[in-house]
Amino acid sequence: MNAISSSTITHHHLPVACYRPGTNQLSLIRARQEVVVQPQPQEKATSRAARLANSLSNLLHLHLETPLQKNLQYTDWNFLDQGNRTSPITSPREDISTKWREIHGSCDWENLMDPLHPWLRREIVKYGEFAQATYDAFDFDSFSEYCGSCRYNRHKLFDKLGLTKNGYMVSKYIYAMSHIDVPSWLERSHLVDTWSKDSNWMGYVAVSDDEESRRIGRRDIVVAWRGTVAPSEWFEDIQGKLEPIGDGDGDVKVEHGFLNIYTSKSESTRYNKSSASEQVMKEVRRLVSLYKQNGEEVSLTITGHSLGGALALLNAYEAAKALPDLPISVISFGAPRVGNTAFRDELHQMGVKALRVVVKQDIVPKMPGFVLNEGLQKFNEITGTLEWVYTHVGAELKLDVHASPYLKRGGFNLPGVHSLETYLHLADGFRGTNLTFRSDARRDIALVNKACGMLANELRIPECWYQLDNKGLVRNAYGRWVKPNREPEHIPSPSREVSLHASFVEMHGHYQGNQPLLSV
Amino acid sequence: MNAISSSTITHHHLPVACYRPGTNQLSLIRARQEVVVQPQPQEKATSRAARLANSLSNLLHLHLETPLQKNLQYTDWNFLDQGNRTSPITSPREDISTKWREIHGSCDWENLMDPLHPWLRREIVKYGEFAQATYDAFDFDSFSEYCGSCRYNRHKLFDKLGLTKNGYMVSKYIYAMSHIDVPSWLERSHLVDTWSKDSNWMGYVAVSDDEESRRIGRRDIVVAWRGTVAPSEWFEDIQGKLEPIGDGDGDVKVEHGFLNIYTSKSESTRYNKSSASEQVMKEVRRLVSLYKQNGEEVSLTITGHSLGGALALLNAYEAAKALPDLPISVISFGAPRVGNTAFRDELHQMGVKALRVVVKQDIVPKMPGFVLNEGLQKFNEITGTLEWVYTHVGAELKLDVHASPYLKRGGFNLPGVHSLETYLHLADGFRGTNLTFRSDARRDIALVNKACGMLANELRIPECWYQLDNKGLVRNAYGRWVKPNREPEHIPSPSREVSLHASFVEMHGHYQGNQPLLSV
Repeated sequence: MNAISSSTITHHHLPVACYRPGTNQLSLIRARQEVVVQPQPQEKATSRAARLANSLSNLLHLHLETPLQKNLQYTDWNFLDQGNRTSPITSPREDISTKWREIHGSCDWENLMDPLHPWLRREIVKYGEFAQATYDAFDFDSFSEYCGSCRYNRHKLFDKLGLTKNGYMVSKYIYAMSHIDVPSWLERSHLVDTWSKDSNWMGYVAVSDDEESRRIGRRDIVVAWRGTVAPSEWFEDIQGKLEPIGDGDGDVKVEHGFLNIYTSKSESTRYNKSSASEQVMKEVRRLVSLYKQNGEEVSLTITGHSLGGALALLNAYEAAKALPDLPISVISFGAPRVGNTAFRDELHQMGVKALRVVVKQDIVPKMPGFVLNEGLQKFNEITGTLEWVYTHVGAELKLDVHASPYLKRGGFNLPGVHSLETYLHLADGFRGTNLTFRSDARRDIALVNKACGMLANELRIPECWYQLDNKGLVRNAYGRWVKPNREPEHIPSPSREVSLHASFVEMHGHYQGNQPLLSV
Repeated sequence: MNAISSSTITHHHLPVACYRPGTNQLSLIRARQEVVVQPQPQEKATSRAARLANSLSNLLHLHLETPLQKNLQYTDWNFLDQGNRTSPITSPREDISTKWREIHGSCDWENLMDPLHPWLRREIVKYGEFAQATYDAFDFDSFSEYCGSCRYNRHKLFDKLGLTKNGYMVSKYIYAMSHIDVPSWLERSHLVDTWSKDSNWMGYVAVSDDEESRRIGRRDIVVAWRGTVAPSEWFEDIQGKLEPIGDGDGDVKVEHGFLNIYTSKSESTRYNKSSASEQVMKEVRRLVSLYKQNGEEVSLTITGHSLGGALALLNAYEAAKALPDLPISVISFGAPRVGNTAFRDELHQMGVKALRVVVKQDIVPKMPGFVLNEGLQKFNEITGTLEWVYTHVGAELKLDVHASPYLKRGGFNLPGVHSLETYLHLADGFRGTNLTFRSDARRDIALVNKACGMLANELRIPECWYQLDNKGLVRNAYGRWVKPNREPEHIPSPSREVSLHASFVEMHGHYQGNQPLLSV
C-alpha cells in the first residue's frame, strides 16, 4: 500500500540542520550596560488566582515550581537586552519543495517531531503567525463602530502587521455569527450604528505567491481562523453537547457551539447572509479551481488557535468531503477537543493530517472534560465519559513552559500559558523533549508579552504591551482628544467584498498572469 | 481694620461673566452622523465594588443613584461628538491684575464661590493643570531604570504636555524620599541600576513669564506637588499619627507620614541629600529675592492633588514662617486633612489662604478619620476623635459628580471620583450649588477618562486611555521590539540640577533680562 511505503520516509531523509552540540549556553555577547535585577519579593498572587492554580495543578498533576532543566536557570540577560537586538528575527528559508508533503504530515510526522526538525519548526511558526494575525488586527474597541472587524483591509493586512515577507496574499475575509448564545464569544460595539450587529471578523483565506510557491513546491492555500483570547471564556463556552455533522449516518458528532459558529447564517445580517463555512468553502473551491486550471499543484493548510483550532478542524472535515483529492493539513495551537471518535476516524480516513501544538500547562486542550466551578474556584472533571466522548485528532507536539529560560518561574498564569505568542515562543525554542531550549532561536522574545505577562522581569519587557498610542485618541488642531474616523479604505463593506470578487472572477476567470490576487 | 474692610469686597466688584439664562441645554449643533447608543445592560458591578459602594454610601449618606438636576439627564451627545470638537479648549484670558488678591483669597473667597466667579474658576483650573502635569509626566514604568522620575527635563515639561501657552516656566524639580515606610507611596524600578533608589520626582517650582505676570499683576511663583494616584493607597498610608511641626511650643501637629515625605533626607541618596522641604524653600527664596530685587510684586501659589495637597499645606506653613511678607495661597484638590486645629489656626494667623476643592463623593478629603476595613470590605469611622483632631484648613469648594451630565450614572468608582481630571472637569462646569452644569465649559471632556472610566459610554471615550504606543516599545531595524533608551537630555542627573543652578546664580545674580529661566 502506498500509505505504508510512504510512512517509511523518516526524519533522516531530510537534511539535518546544524545542531551545534555544546552551544546550549546562550551566546555571551557582553554589553557595556549592566542590567542587574533586584531580588523581587514574591509577587502577590490574588487568592483567587492562587486557588485556581492550586486546584488546576492538583488536577493535572503538574509540578509548577520545578523547572524542566536545571541548567537553564542561569540566563545571561545581557544577551537579550543588547546583543540579540541586532540579529535577524527569522531563520533562513530553505527550499523545501521536495519534502513538503512530509512536513505537512504525510507520514504523520513520525521522526520529525522529537527531535523537532528545523524545517517543520519553521513551518509551524509560519502558520502560527497567520493565526496570530487574526488577533493582532482585530478591533477589540467596544467604543468603535467597527468593533469586531479587522482594522485593515485584506490587501494591507500583512503589511500593517509587519508580515510582508511571509510570501502570501490575503484573498478573502471570513465572517462568522452564532445562532445560539455562546457567551463571551462575539465582540460587540456599545453603539447601535455599527458595521455589523451580529458578525465578527473570524479569519481569512490567503494563498502563496509565486516565490513562496516555488520554495514550497506548490500553491498553498491557507485558512487562518481567529479564536477567543482568554481561556476563561472557554469555561463558559463549552457546554459539552455533541451534534451530528455531515450527511453520514449521524455517527459523526462535534461540539454544538463550535459547529454553530461555523455554520450560522441569517438573511437579516450584513456579513453572514452566508455562513463562515459557505464563505470559506466558496473561496477555497475558487482558488483550487483557478490554480489547478493553470496546472499547478495545490494544497490546503488550515490553522487556528484555541476556538480557531476547533474551527480549523471543522473546516478541514468539510473541505476533505468536498475536495477529496486536495492535500489538507491542519496545524492548530491550544485547540480543544472538537468531536467524537467517529469524527476523528473519518478525518483520518479522508487523509486529513492534523498537527496539534499543545502546551502541557494549558487547560484549553483538555476541554471539553474540565469545567471551572466558579463558586468553588476550582476545576471539576465532569466525567471520564466526556473526555472519552471528545477525542483529539492527529499528532501532538507537546511544549512545556518550563523549557524556556525566558519565562517566569513558579506561579501559574492561565491566560499567559494559553496565549498563542507563548506557543510560538516555545515552538521556536523547542528542540526535543529532553533537549534544552534552542540557543539560536530567532523569534523576537518580546512578542510573548504582547497580551500577557509571561516573560521574566529580567527581560524588562512590559506586560500586555501591544496597545495603541492613547487607545487611538489623537489631539486635533483645537487641542481636543478625539477618535479619528477609520480611513475609508479600511472600513469593512459587504458590497465591496462581493463586488471585488465578482470583478475578480470576471477579470481572471482564466488564470494567466502573476499575482492575480493583488491586482484586485 | 484692613482685613474687615477688604472683606466687604464681593463678587459684584468683579465683572460678571455672561451667564446666559436659558442656555442650560447644551448647544444643539446637529451633526450628520447619528450616534445612537444601545441601552446597555446594567454593567456588572463586582460584588466587592458593590459592597464597597454600598458601605461608603451609607456612611456618607450619599444618594448615589439620584442625579442632582433632573433636567441634565437628557444630553445631546452629538454636540460633543462633533460640534464641540472644533471649539477652543480654553476660556479667554482676561486681565485680572487688579483683582488678583481677591481671586487668591484675600477675602477668603466669600461671594466668589457660589456662584463661582469665572475668573476664579479659570485660575482653579490653571493651578489644577499644574498639579496634573506631575502625573502626566511621571514615569510609572517599573521596568524602566528611570521609574519614579519625570520623563522630561524641566525645560521641556510643559511643551511635551501641550501646556506651552500656560505662561509659566519651570525653574526647579523637587525630589522626595521617606525615612518611614509609607506603603504604596514610592514608585520603584524593578532594576538595581537606576537613576535613584530612594527618591521620586515629587513636583516642581515654576514662575510666571512676563506676559502672564502682566496679566495677573505680579510675578507668581508656583509650586506643584505630585500626589498618589489611587485612593486605595491612602487607606494604608494614613496611620493617624500626629507629630509636632515647626519651632513653636509643640502644639502645632501634623500627620507623621506626610511630614516625613516632606522633610526626609539622606547623604547616601543622589536626589535627597537635601529634603523636599529644603529644595523647595531654597528655590522659592531664590526666586523671591531675584524678582524683589527687580522691584516686582511677588506671590507664591502652592497646588497639589491628594497627597500633593497635603504637602502643599506643609509647604505653605514653612514658607509663611520663612517669608512673612509674601502672599501665599494654596489651591488643593481632593486633599486629606493634614494637621490639628493649632496647625489650622497658625496658618490662618500667618495669612495663608487655602482653597480646598473637594468632590462630595471622594473619600480622601474625609481622611484621616475613615479606614477601609479590607476584611469586611467596608469603611469604618475610626473615632469621632480623629476627625476632630485632624482639621481642614481654609475654604471649601464642593463639587458633585452628579452635576455633570457627562459622567456615568449610578455605581461608584472610587479611583474615578478621586481622579484629578474628574475634579478639573467638575470645576470647569461648576456654576453654583443650585445651578446646572455650565453649558459653555470648554475643557476637553475626554481628559476625564485619561486614567479612569468615569465618562458615560455615550461619549465613546475609552477608559484609561492615557498610554504610550506599545508601552514605549518600538520595532528596530531588525524587526525586534525594544525599549529605546531615554534621550540623554531627559535623563535625570543630580549634578546637572546643581550645576545649572549654580551657573544661573552666577549669571543672573542681578536680574536684568526677560525670561531668565529659559536661558539657563
